[in-house]
Amino acid sequence: MEPQLFVKMALQGWNTQVARAEKYFDALTEADFQQQVAPGKNRIVYLYGHLTSYHGLLSETLGLGEAKYPELAPVFLRSPDGPAVDEYTIAQLKQYWAEVHTRLTELFNALPAEDWFKRHNAMTDEDFANDPTRNRLSVLLSRTNHIAYHFGQLVLV
Amino acid sequence: MEPQLFVKMALQGWNTQVARAEKYFDALTEADFQQQVAPGKNRIVYLYGHLTSYHGLLSETLGLGEAKYPELAPVFLRSPDGPAVDEYTIAQLKQYWAEVHTRLTELFNALPAEDWFKRHNAMTDEDFANDPTRNRLSVLLSRTNHIAYHFGQLVLV
Repeated sequence: MEPQLFVKMALQGWNTQVARAEKYFDALTEADFQQQVAPGKNRIVYLYGHLTSYHGLLSETLGLGEAKYPELAPVFLRSPDGPAVDEYTIAQLKQYWAEVHTRLTELFNALPAEDWFKRHNAMTDEDFANDPTRNRLSVLLSRTNHIAYHFGQLVLV
Repeated sequence: MEPQLFVKMALQGWNTQVARAEKYFDALTEADFQQQVAPGKNRIVYLYGHLTSYHGLLSETLGLGEAKYPELAPVFLRSPDGPAVDEYTIAQLKQYWAEVHTRLTELFNALPAEDWFKRHNAMTDEDFANDPTRNRLSVLLSRTNHIAYHFGQLVLV
């Protein structure tokens, strides 16, 4: 079994979820972004920034390069939806989203298949020796599920 | 790279999502199951049967054995939430959920790692030759994302 095959499968899953979310966000008007996914729950604009922020950090988590837009994390990742979100325009977030995902695609395509099975930055060498499933690819699978989780909420609007 | 590693990663993802959903459903009262995930959207009871039905068919899709409870599909998979759902009690669905997932765990644990990379029943040999990523494991990854998608909705309640 070639590692290329696993990597291709995992990347296909990631690309499918990102493309589906992007298509959804791109079809919205400015006003749509202010809607909540359910009464009293996150607005779409928050989830847009939330996914952008989390994916901006992914390059660093995977040890592939520095984080993109780490300044989004206090607003979109470590805090619930609130007034601080409104300091960002939709046009800004759209630009960030595009940059973050274009860059990830470049980084992912440049990474040799076997390097996906190396440890990520969020764990120690010792932990990795004990559990080699906690590699870069497992982070990608986890982030892919995370998009699906929020996409399930977005489609309720 | 050993195929065992990738299979283990994919199964960990599946098991995590199933366990998380099960814990959620097991903590609900009978009345809770009648709640909608958002106004006018699916009730929790529908999503309970929906995941049970889809996973009951999985053994057949993967070519590992006959489908479990295929009679659920017209109500929970091929139709939206509606009165037909109420012909099933929560106790019944709970039993089906347990049986379906216990059986899948047995089938999955018994499957040699390399067999996960064989084609699934929903495609032809010719298609598989053209795209070997469309194997059993890709179905599992896809179903794992599907649980996450609906779990994102369930937590809104």
